[in-house]
Amino acid sequence: MNTSSAHPLLSRIDSPADVRRLARAELKQLAVELREFLLQSVSRTGGHLSSNLGTVELTVALHHVFHTPEDRLVWDVGHQTYPHKILTGRRDRMHTLRQLDGLSGFPRRAESEYDTFGTGHSSTSISAALGMAMAAQLKGEKRRAVAIIGDGSMTAGMAFEALNNAGMPHAGKVPNLLVILNDNDMSISPPVGALNKYLARLMSGKFYAAAREGAKNVLKNAPPLFELARRFEEHAKGMVVPGTIFEELGFNYVGPIDGHDLDALIPTLENLRDKSGAQFLHVVTRKGYGYKLAEADPISYHGPGKFDPRIGLVKPATPPKPTFTQVFGQWLCDMAEADPKLVGITPAMREGSGMVEFHRRFPDRYHDVGIAEQHAVTFAAGLACEGLKPVVAIYSTFLQRAYDQLIHDVALQNLPVVFALDRAGLVGADGATHAGAYDIAYLRCIPNVSLIAPADEPELRRALTSAHHHGAPVAVRYPRGSGAGLAVGSELDELPWGQGEVRRDSAAAPGSGRRIAILAFGSLLYPALEAAEALDASVANMRFIKPLDTALVERLGRSHDALVTVEEGCLAGGAGSAVLEALQAAGIKVPVLNLGLPDRYIEHGDPALLLAQCGLDAAGIEASIRQRFAGTLGGSHLRPVANG
Amino acid sequence: MNTSSAHPLLSRIDSPADVRRLARAELKQLAVELREFLLQSVSRTGGHLSSNLGTVELTVALHHVFHTPEDRLVWDVGHQTYPHKILTGRRDRMHTLRQLDGLSGFPRRAESEYDTFGTGHSSTSISAALGMAMAAQLKGEKRRAVAIIGDGSMTAGMAFEALNNAGMPHAGKVPNLLVILNDNDMSISPPVGALNKYLARLMSGKFYAAAREGAKNVLKNAPPLFELARRFEEHAKGMVVPGTIFEELGFNYVGPIDGHDLDALIPTLENLRDKSGAQFLHVVTRKGYGYKLAEADPISYHGPGKFDPRIGLVKPATPPKPTFTQVFGQWLCDMAEADPKLVGITPAMREGSGMVEFHRRFPDRYHDVGIAEQHAVTFAAGLACEGLKPVVAIYSTFLQRAYDQLIHDVALQNLPVVFALDRAGLVGADGATHAGAYDIAYLRCIPNVSLIAPADEPELRRALTSAHHHGAPVAVRYPRGSGAGLAVGSELDELPWGQGEVRRDSAAAPGSGRRIAILAFGSLLYPALEAAEALDASVANMRFIKPLDTALVERLGRSHDALVTVEEGCLAGGAGSAVLEALQAAGIKVPVLNLGLPDRYIEHGDPALLLAQCGLDAAGIEASIRQRFAGTLGGSHLRPVANG
Repeated sequence: MNTSSAHPLLSRIDSPADVRRLARAELKQLAVELREFLLQSVSRTGGHLSSNLGTVELTVALHHVFHTPEDRLVWDVGHQTYPHKILTGRRDRMHTLRQLDGLSGFPRRAESEYDTFGTGHSSTSISAALGMAMAAQLKGEKRRAVAIIGDGSMTAGMAFEALNNAGMPHAGKVPNLLVILNDNDMSISPPVGALNKYLARLMSGKFYAAAREGAKNVLKNAPPLFELARRFEEHAKGMVVPGTIFEELGFNYVGPIDGHDLDALIPTLENLRDKSGAQFLHVVTRKGYGYKLAEADPISYHGPGKFDPRIGLVKPATPPKPTFTQVFGQWLCDMAEADPKLVGITPAMREGSGMVEFHRRFPDRYHDVGIAEQHAVTFAAGLACEGLKPVVAIYSTFLQRAYDQLIHDVALQNLPVVFALDRAGLVGADGATHAGAYDIAYLRCIPNVSLIAPADEPELRRALTSAHHHGAPVAVRYPRGSGAGLAVGSELDELPWGQGEVRRDSAAAPGSGRRIAILAFGSLLYPALEAAEALDASVANMRFIKPLDTALVERLGRSHDALVTVEEGCLAGGAGSAVLEALQAAGIKVPVLNLGLPDRYIEHGDPALLLAQCGLDAAGIEASIRQRFAGTLGGSHLRPVANG
Repeated sequence: MNTSSAHPLLSRIDSPADVRRLARAELKQLAVELREFLLQSVSRTGGHLSSNLGTVELTVALHHVFHTPEDRLVWDVGHQTYPHKILTGRRDRMHTLRQLDGLSGFPRRAESEYDTFGTGHSSTSISAALGMAMAAQLKGEKRRAVAIIGDGSMTAGMAFEALNNAGMPHAGKVPNLLVILNDNDMSISPPVGALNKYLARLMSGKFYAAAREGAKNVLKNAPPLFELARRFEEHAKGMVVPGTIFEELGFNYVGPIDGHDLDALIPTLENLRDKSGAQFLHVVTRKGYGYKLAEADPISYHGPGKFDPRIGLVKPATPPKPTFTQVFGQWLCDMAEADPKLVGITPAMREGSGMVEFHRRFPDRYHDVGIAEQHAVTFAAGLACEGLKPVVAIYSTFLQRAYDQLIHDVALQNLPVVFALDRAGLVGADGATHAGAYDIAYLRCIPNVSLIAPADEPELRRALTSAHHHGAPVAVRYPRGSGAGLAVGSELDELPWGQGEVRRDSAAAPGSGRRIAILAFGSLLYPALEAAEALDASVANMRFIKPLDTALVERLGRSHDALVTVEEGCLAGGAGSAVLEALQAAGIKVPVLNLGLPDRYIEHGDPALLLAQCGLDAAGIEASIRQRFAGTLGGSHLRPVANG
């Protein structure tokens, strides 16, 4: 788009210093242009929309009032930082957003000095900003630290831990920290939990009073907030808000104010900037603000793909292949139908985990506990103690948040909890913060835990069924997006427990030095099969990472000249490593090539491209095998079968 | 001791049903006998004392009022459950406490039907009890669920997550859950954080009012509480407590009441038992109550060894070998002296982590963030962003709580945070919940993280110095207790980064089929050296788990007929597994025996016995090597050098 003509003011903003020079009226114009630019930009690249439309004015006000980057802004979660990126010298790179070598969809320290702390997972901002504030205090520096955190993120325990720590004096002084609660009444899924209700009460009480007394101007330009206030009027009647929770925790609480009103935001922020100690500003915004379609349906517009802003999202004419997430969602409903003991739990990821239909059909057995992975897992353990069969649907990357609970509450007590680990492996556009790269390593070391990596859609269904019936902790890992595209039936049959299967047998003669077996874990079975065609290799679909099918490993190890393991997970301590352990334990000497994710963080980009870069597509698998085993197997060269 | 004569009432209590039959006066007598029995018992076995003296009346009251085990009591942390164990049929086994095959020091589901949920780590009880309450609701059962949680545990985020979830209706009904806050104004270390201050305000305000009005009787028998109230009187003046935080979160808040007064406890609990929904009872107790020495110094009496109750704890005449913890504490002070950028962080483990002296000498750079591991790690990341050098002192088992923060906030951003991982390996009397068995596996899979396992005291000091100067995340793991007993100097010199060292060279001829090399990681180097003497094996002190000294691994692999890895950590994905990966990557075929912790939970007991059971003492290492390599190395039998 032609920025300079369409966005005359924005096109001249090359850094926040430019924002600080603008007069109030210009700032308002800047907000209008910024929102417009944002909508156009995201509609072309895909990415997060609703949250960014909600933070336009707040971002303008923050960079106007604070001396960034000397003052530190820490954006919680970080998917609402597109306005921040646009104002901090990255406007002209927004078209590269979330693409390989392009801008990240989250703040990244390596990307800009204005990105003071990388985020992605929720609820880290107060801890990080407190660390920065404490450092300023220790070093005698004047800089300010600001955490901007949504109401959804506030439900996670670590936000509370940080609040509990921040309001207390250290060496006689409470560090200068400003926490801004960006209260938009939702995380990705609709809001849950008592804190959310509490915030609504705060909001209604104060707004109501403000509106009645006419003392403040906060609602002037915000009819939606008026409505919200009216909706909560009943709650508010006769209510006094003498000291908020945040004041009890040692903060000076200010708010709520309208987060779309620069006339409210700027003087309030200026006032708070000059105060010392722990400050808490409650700002109310609306996700999708300014784009009617997103305001009406912020969930669908949370993270849309490309779309025409004049039309909005449209359903594709031909339905795409079902995703693994959808296969899980369907299984969950079917198994819940069959087994009244099944209970489904999500930490605020109803949509992402495919549980909308389950929620609709089994509301009593559906639990969204908020962004609270730790609680989710131990809550599941409590349910399991009473004979229920909990299924915790959680992304691989977010289970990291509940690692101790998995070890200490579920595995140690050997309780029958099923973990449906979505987004296991590379996740594409979300990048390194969200990669499900470590679960194989961090789960297989835990006693009592079983781990299954189904290869395709029907196998995911069977794996979940097996897990459900196993009577002990089982995690089933599956990648983001769709798989091989195999049809999924309605049966609820199981996998043979702990058993893999041979899917292709090499035609090479035993002892020929050319017999290779690929042991594939998970959906990389399919590129492995493709590579095996070119190499005339045997292929096993291992299915189980733990218990590992050691009989199959030993059989393949004894009958082949070399083994190759393939997995979409980190190499260090991964499934391939389990194969090495099994071979050594059995005293089998066979060269093994382990293929998987390297020991570095993989950035954002197209998942297929990223997998290829890691050598985990069919061509990469083939090339790695040729490279490693050329000339090493009994002195014979490995020649492509196709050419031989 | 002769229970029946010394404890005429207690000796007749074989289950809580017996407690329920007693009249009020008898219950008071029971509490007296129980406290007496407890003191005698713990002084003979060692174990937790202060916390158990504090829960005597509460335990009596709970089993009197609730129909255990049908009603579920979930004890947070669980080290305060000795009275509970004594009243639930385990009185006569208390002399086996925390010993191999004896009673656990924590609740364990496998030990008793009265132990409804195993605990050990803090702050899990509300989540677990909510799960049980929700299950009762779903199944239409009448049973009650009670979580008993200390004020220290309440600072951890997951307690907040659970509270936030518990007070909300599910399927139109708030589950019947009672949370009892056992407020004794401390966790293991002195209390920190805003919540603690808040609780003190609640306590002072209410107690003060109660004392003045004479309306309640709560302070009658509790002079210490009176004092406490007076101490906080200043805070309380003019204070109104209109709605507590717990009420804002949807609970019905009752309290504070005196937790040592059965006349207050029993009617209050009876009243709450019959109420539906989310109930919150604030009980005030005193750690060490009834034993003057423990009341005066609850920290020293938190977990004493054996002692004479008439005399109390005495310092041993000859100081024992310094523990690894002490070596760390000394290093921390020395390095803080040398480098003003060093900042020390503990999640409520000042004593356990050896930071008392550091706190005394460097109060500005000491941070106890409360039981808040997640916050501790991300707070450290924030400090590191500003050029400080944080050292997070944390037990291996508790770092599990901050796994995501380590990955997402520290490692991904490659920030220079040092993790001093105490209690890495088996921990002895605390048992499976506290075992530091998994850190090698769960850390070495994370990019950018280095991991060092020093073999002895001076090497710990050098490892910490290397970590401090490395400029990227490093964890240094060391076991509980003392090591080889080597003298530690005052130098601050480094280890050669990433390099192990050969400590013993086998005299066997290369190619003889008898040359074995033991690769030892950490303090098991010493039993490995002992075993090597008997076997004439080479021994390497590997030091670094990551980066692994692959040059040394390859050299040993090429020059020996077999390798053995030894580590005090889980075998699956451990350091031995890293050696297998390195050998395969280098194409070296050599048989390897991996020795380490098996894939099951190791219960409590004497650490030396437990290590021996796992085959990780010198005799066990020797035996495993003989067994594995007898007859397999080039057809020759491995004969003991001593006899050969």
